[in-house]
Amino acid sequence: MSLHDEFELIRGIQGVLGRPSRRVILGIGDDAAVVKPPKGNLVATVDTMVEGVHFDLAYTTPQELGYKALAVNLSDMAAMGATPLYALVSVGLQQSTTEHFVGELYQGIRKLAKRFDVDIIGGNTVQSPTATVIDISLIGEASKTFITRSGARVGDLIAVTGPLGESAAGLNCLKRLGRQNLDRLKGLVNAHLMPEPRVKEALALVKTGAVTSMIDISDGFARDLHHLTGQSKVGALIDEAAIPISDLTRKGGELVSTSPRGWALYGGEDYELLFTFNPKKLSAVKKALGKSFYIVGEILPIKQKVKIKNAAGEIGLLEPRGWNHFVRRSRLKNDPETVLV
Amino acid sequence: MSLHDEFELIRGIQGVLGRPSRRVILGIGDDAAVVKPPKGNLVATVDTMVEGVHFDLAYTTPQELGYKALAVNLSDMAAMGATPLYALVSVGLQQSTTEHFVGELYQGIRKLAKRFDVDIIGGNTVQSPTATVIDISLIGEASKTFITRSGARVGDLIAVTGPLGESAAGLNCLKRLGRQNLDRLKGLVNAHLMPEPRVKEALALVKTGAVTSMIDISDGFARDLHHLTGQSKVGALIDEAAIPISDLTRKGGELVSTSPRGWALYGGEDYELLFTFNPKKLSAVKKALGKSFYIVGEILPIKQKVKIKNAAGEIGLLEPRGWNHFVRRSRLKNDPETVLV
Repeated sequence: MSLHDEFELIRGIQGVLGRPSRRVILGIGDDAAVVKPPKGNLVATVDTMVEGVHFDLAYTTPQELGYKALAVNLSDMAAMGATPLYALVSVGLQQSTTEHFVGELYQGIRKLAKRFDVDIIGGNTVQSPTATVIDISLIGEASKTFITRSGARVGDLIAVTGPLGESAAGLNCLKRLGRQNLDRLKGLVNAHLMPEPRVKEALALVKTGAVTSMIDISDGFARDLHHLTGQSKVGALIDEAAIPISDLTRKGGELVSTSPRGWALYGGEDYELLFTFNPKKLSAVKKALGKSFYIVGEILPIKQKVKIKNAAGEIGLLEPRGWNHFVRRSRLKNDPETVLV
Repeated sequence: MSLHDEFELIRGIQGVLGRPSRRVILGIGDDAAVVKPPKGNLVATVDTMVEGVHFDLAYTTPQELGYKALAVNLSDMAAMGATPLYALVSVGLQQSTTEHFVGELYQGIRKLAKRFDVDIIGGNTVQSPTATVIDISLIGEASKTFITRSGARVGDLIAVTGPLGESAAGLNCLKRLGRQNLDRLKGLVNAHLMPEPRVKEALALVKTGAVTSMIDISDGFARDLHHLTGQSKVGALIDEAAIPISDLTRKGGELVSTSPRGWALYGGEDYELLFTFNPKKLSAVKKALGKSFYIVGEILPIKQKVKIKNAAGEIGLLEPRGWNHFVRRSRLKNDPETVLV
């Protein structure tokens, strides 16, 4: 593949991506792609990752970058209880970017796309003066019973699909110890660089009919819980002791002398699902997810606000703050970005 | 609207965009948007505009930037003979970006979206260290008779929907004379900053059943003709005297002592449609477009390559070169970017 020749680059990318599925009527190479429409409703989301804001190429391989850029979109799709179908990939490349980098980036996208039966139907590459940018739009389908952030009801239980804080632990260890020193903490590194989007878990949850609201944890448990309770117009009480924190995260905490509590509550980028369900339907949720979920609290009336009970039994407000890992001085003080969907 | 508060920014953007159409089941504000699926086939495209590469804020207002970012996508949709429906908008903002800028940007998007009945269903804003970036994905619908670049047949006539070179003339006059000195050439300035996407013309053409191939002129007539003939595996002969050049473009050429020929053949960003049709169906094309099209040549066998006959009757190769307005030194020598769809 050559970055000097447009057609060679397109052919190179097509070579990496391989043949699309039979849903794709006209793929890469025309003014637009033409594909079979979703059954049921169309679900769409987009996420942008900017070098120096969302990722650091000092410890991220291009394959991992491609993987993660698609993974965060798959996670959004999962949070709706929707099935991903098609992706458009925009890449902003610097002058210094090599052909090898571009090939590896698409390889990372392709591998994850293949696992979730997603077709890459188009996109573009543009020059970007000082930062590599990757922006993926994802189109999927959902039945009439898609899940929003706004359906949580008083008395619902609050659960997450996996341990929290691993991604933040991985990021902090990467930044402070360097990747070469993290062979034994590969799980943390992977949690940060190659998070597993919970698409299958979400689809299993939708089928139960038990789930009343759902969001994926990208901004951090506390902030995303506030997104959910805010849009559902309810309060919540979280039991801190019930927040799942893995042994790996604890080990990472010891290594860099940081309490894993902050990572789990505020760290972000876990890409686990945070969902609520009617307690009467607990057995259906158990059947759908097996042991892969953790009940961490319950939904209260809105006047109760969002609270957390610590190990000593003290109850305080759980503030909707997140961690802003990369940006030191930001005009967007409270949040480095705004996600419309 | 405030850039400091995520929810206020979302509310501010929602306020600018207004209520979506009834096709939108769940709009801005959740993990993904949920909308009614397209009838027929789903058509999707994406375009990214980077400050310093695709636009210059020295002479582009934020409304114009928002307008153009959507217009170039509408133009891609038109080139397929498809109807635009939904857009996702990603914006990369610098630290210095003001709330006013963001509001105006969305205002520009909204105005054009409204004219073409497009719903802005989501997107995001992220920080971008040194360049403002706007990336729009557009989803539309097409019947089974969508139009590709690859259907041109020997003997077909080649036509364009409007005069060529106005955008390049506008850009050159803007760069060399400054916007304040171009009051009398507002048409050129608009051609560059607020091009009209030929959506209605494209839909009228599709209905004729006459059109065999189509592309929108973004890279320049010569380069886009090569895209079309390359993918159709044919040659072409262009009659230079038939290339429509407006009086405004000629005036611009006089002002900056440049021949308008280069702008028309290689200038790019005209966003007129370049299409081919069977000459037997000329009357159908006339009925669809009225006087708003110009026959500029005919399709030849591939061995004839792509040629142009000048005013003196001399025939030479029409090289697939375009103008790279912004980038002086580029690794991507022949083309500053690659468009997969």
